[in-house]
Amino acid sequence: MTVERGITVKKSEDFSEWYTQIIMKAELADYAGIKGFIVFKPYSYEIWENIQKFLDGKLKASGHKNAYFPALIPESYLKKEAEHFSGFVPEVFWVTRTGNNEIGEPLAMRPTSETIVCDSYAKWIKSWRDLPILINLWNSVFRAEIKATKPFLRTSEFLWQEGHTAHATPEEAEKEVHDILEFYRQLVEEQLAIPVLLGAKTEAEKFVGAVYTLAMEAMMPDGKALQMGTSHFLGQNFSKPFEIKYLGKDEKDHYVWQTSWGVTTRMIGAVVMVHGDDKGLVLPPRIAPIQTVVVPIYYKNEDREKVLAKAKETVKILSAASISAYLDDRTEYTPGWKFNEWEMKGIPTRIEIGPRDVAADQVIMSRRDTGQKSAVKIGDLLKETLRTLESIQVSLYENAKKQLESSIRPAKSYEEFKQILETKGGFVRACWCGRSQCEAKIKEETGATIRTVPFRKEEIFSGCITCGQKATDVVYFARAY
Amino acid sequence: MTVERGITVKKSEDFSEWYTQIIMKAELADYAGIKGFIVFKPYSYEIWENIQKFLDGKLKASGHKNAYFPALIPESYLKKEAEHFSGFVPEVFWVTRTGNNEIGEPLAMRPTSETIVCDSYAKWIKSWRDLPILINLWNSVFRAEIKATKPFLRTSEFLWQEGHTAHATPEEAEKEVHDILEFYRQLVEEQLAIPVLLGAKTEAEKFVGAVYTLAMEAMMPDGKALQMGTSHFLGQNFSKPFEIKYLGKDEKDHYVWQTSWGVTTRMIGAVVMVHGDDKGLVLPPRIAPIQTVVVPIYYKNEDREKVLAKAKETVKILSAASISAYLDDRTEYTPGWKFNEWEMKGIPTRIEIGPRDVAADQVIMSRRDTGQKSAVKIGDLLKETLRTLESIQVSLYENAKKQLESSIRPAKSYEEFKQILETKGGFVRACWCGRSQCEAKIKEETGATIRTVPFRKEEIFSGCITCGQKATDVVYFARAY
Repeated sequence: MTVERGITVKKSEDFSEWYTQIIMKAELADYAGIKGFIVFKPYSYEIWENIQKFLDGKLKASGHKNAYFPALIPESYLKKEAEHFSGFVPEVFWVTRTGNNEIGEPLAMRPTSETIVCDSYAKWIKSWRDLPILINLWNSVFRAEIKATKPFLRTSEFLWQEGHTAHATPEEAEKEVHDILEFYRQLVEEQLAIPVLLGAKTEAEKFVGAVYTLAMEAMMPDGKALQMGTSHFLGQNFSKPFEIKYLGKDEKDHYVWQTSWGVTTRMIGAVVMVHGDDKGLVLPPRIAPIQTVVVPIYYKNEDREKVLAKAKETVKILSAASISAYLDDRTEYTPGWKFNEWEMKGIPTRIEIGPRDVAADQVIMSRRDTGQKSAVKIGDLLKETLRTLESIQVSLYENAKKQLESSIRPAKSYEEFKQILETKGGFVRACWCGRSQCEAKIKEETGATIRTVPFRKEEIFSGCITCGQKATDVVYFARAY
Repeated sequence: MTVERGITVKKSEDFSEWYTQIIMKAELADYAGIKGFIVFKPYSYEIWENIQKFLDGKLKASGHKNAYFPALIPESYLKKEAEHFSGFVPEVFWVTRTGNNEIGEPLAMRPTSETIVCDSYAKWIKSWRDLPILINLWNSVFRAEIKATKPFLRTSEFLWQEGHTAHATPEEAEKEVHDILEFYRQLVEEQLAIPVLLGAKTEAEKFVGAVYTLAMEAMMPDGKALQMGTSHFLGQNFSKPFEIKYLGKDEKDHYVWQTSWGVTTRMIGAVVMVHGDDKGLVLPPRIAPIQTVVVPIYYKNEDREKVLAKAKETVKILSAASISAYLDDRTEYTPGWKFNEWEMKGIPTRIEIGPRDVAADQVIMSRRDTGQKSAVKIGDLLKETLRTLESIQVSLYENAKKQLESSIRPAKSYEEFKQILETKGGFVRACWCGRSQCEAKIKEETGATIRTVPFRKEEIFSGCITCGQKATDVVYFARAY
């Protein structure tokens, strides 16, 4: 059995198949033997570690601490917040047995941890001195998926972080909700090079149990939106049923104000879709596990030593400046094979060194995004590598930004709205009267939902796209993953 | 309701209660609402992060990569290695339902991941070029505990790392098993300041499914041993039922040789037990989330500004040298209250600064382990802090080493053996004939097991402690957690 190593379809022709092939051939993930589950192979896990490092740093610097809560939640906890329970229960994995013994009360594998966190917060919070509590969890969550599995985008278990905070005042909690969204924006735009629309979710689309939800939305090349992260203001919706109260400076009991927020490994799927090309993955330098791969090239044995020496020197120069450089000196593969492999894996820059380069005291550097090649003198190596990596990071973002902007199309009539969705996809910018029934009608008839209500009100340019009555907001509709 | 903030029992008088009080009052962990489960509060999780950082660095530097495998394992996978299955199945949490639908084949919450990892390795490994595979997982595992929960030592879910490697030859795999044990030894002895006995497990005590198991054993102050980490040579016990084969350079198919190994959050429990005292936790500086706490002391408002300025300067000097220093400038607590809190939390060094210290350009430094206090000139602050932290690290290890050594007692007769166990506990060094029935008899009659068979054979000094016949090994018995 021989497997075609390259991608056998074009991104523009069969997007779904192209995506799956990249996931497999760049060795990001594999299907597990259980329906709906995937294995995060080392390459995607390294990307996740880089994402973690950035976000964990931001969270710690702003006073958040990590902790760990049990993966199992008693059914009775989930039921305490009624909307929350009804929202999650259809997709819960239930533990009903240990060894050969039935368990009295079924235990849910956490779909999210608000309820079990609240159970502890009720014990831990006594006085205003205990507030705020700013806790973050890095873990995995479980949601039985009925639809087809799509690695990173839709699986029954995925990795994420979930933040859970409790505050003395609503103002402080709402500030947290916005501060976190800003961290998320920095992560997605500045590290992953993916531009997003920021805004609020509608009542229909918010987190079950929240007062309101803020979110980032990105646009994928197939015209479908992808939610990249959410930050929820929970108000007192959980503190009341869970009795999370503190004794204020006024010597009176008050319920706390809460937030919760999360980003997941689906961001890795977005990186694949937004930046990848017909040769494979293209990684933004800031999250690439390897930023530069160095490939020594020699055909005569007499060249081996000097070429390898120069390759090692190159890696040393780059590593000393904290560039993640990898020497691919495997002898069982040809240079051509290696080029294909590292292009598939989306390494931002490749450095080739042959005998003639050694003689000329130079290397050949090529960038993954444009394929551009140039000779670089060893004396300029570090400066030129740093410049190129930064240039790739900026260029990936700029290109994605153009794509996002060109994917937004205004619609003044329902006919126009439907036509845009059918022919082009993307975001449809439209006016809305604010009523849930108009939103529901569009969802039912077109599959599109309101992805975001922008923070800054935009100028109304028509009646409600559905009912034609007076509109209150300009909103962004799309079909979504 | 007022809670006594200090520990109300002595370590030497009621060890078990002392342990539980430290866990709760130093805010390391809390019981969750589900039997057998705990919450890892931020303080213990920070210790775990420091442990992870050290070990993860060692593993990555030696070519290991992290990955993530599903938390659920089909029953049929577990059954493929018969001993493994029968060993784990009594304590498995079974998922039997999603939403309201029964699942065809029950899914086990991973008690350990050998089987699901092997299922993937069978797909991933084709040629000798694919070997070795060196993968590590940071996750949590689930084992329904019937005995009473003891935070960190015995809970139904705990955090750990599990390494899973596959090699072309048994020699390479066996080298890995030993290399990993050495990393573990460095972690436990050099970071946690806990000395260990190294050696092999007997057939009865090895990992179910392994060819053999190497382990580290530590001694707790109550005379019970604690297994601190294990490294298993799996041979081809899993590669054969899972059909993990590679095409060798000889163009023939071969089964791979495997290892697996792990350390868990139980190490945090060992740190508490070995180093803690009647005032609370005592943390080795290398894993302490805060190494130095700075407490400004002023009673007159006019002193406030200058004392705080000096305290901030102190933190700045230490932080610049990567010492984890924390300024406790909370105004809602008195200095005395703060002293007690940080002593309870085991912070290695405390720095006090009052108006007179500002005037004298000095600080008062006290060390947690001995309580010793000394005035330190600001000019000597960094040097003296580094020296003190190193001295505490060494001293904790030296004290624990003396305790370990004094806990080892030889026994020449079964009577003597039983008497040592009953009156003193600790390790009993005894000769053994190598037969499982002698080992089983001792376990049944005394509760003691063979904790370790030393790598280097020690000189036989009696007949088998049980049957009196010719002994083959000097081994270390103990009752254990």
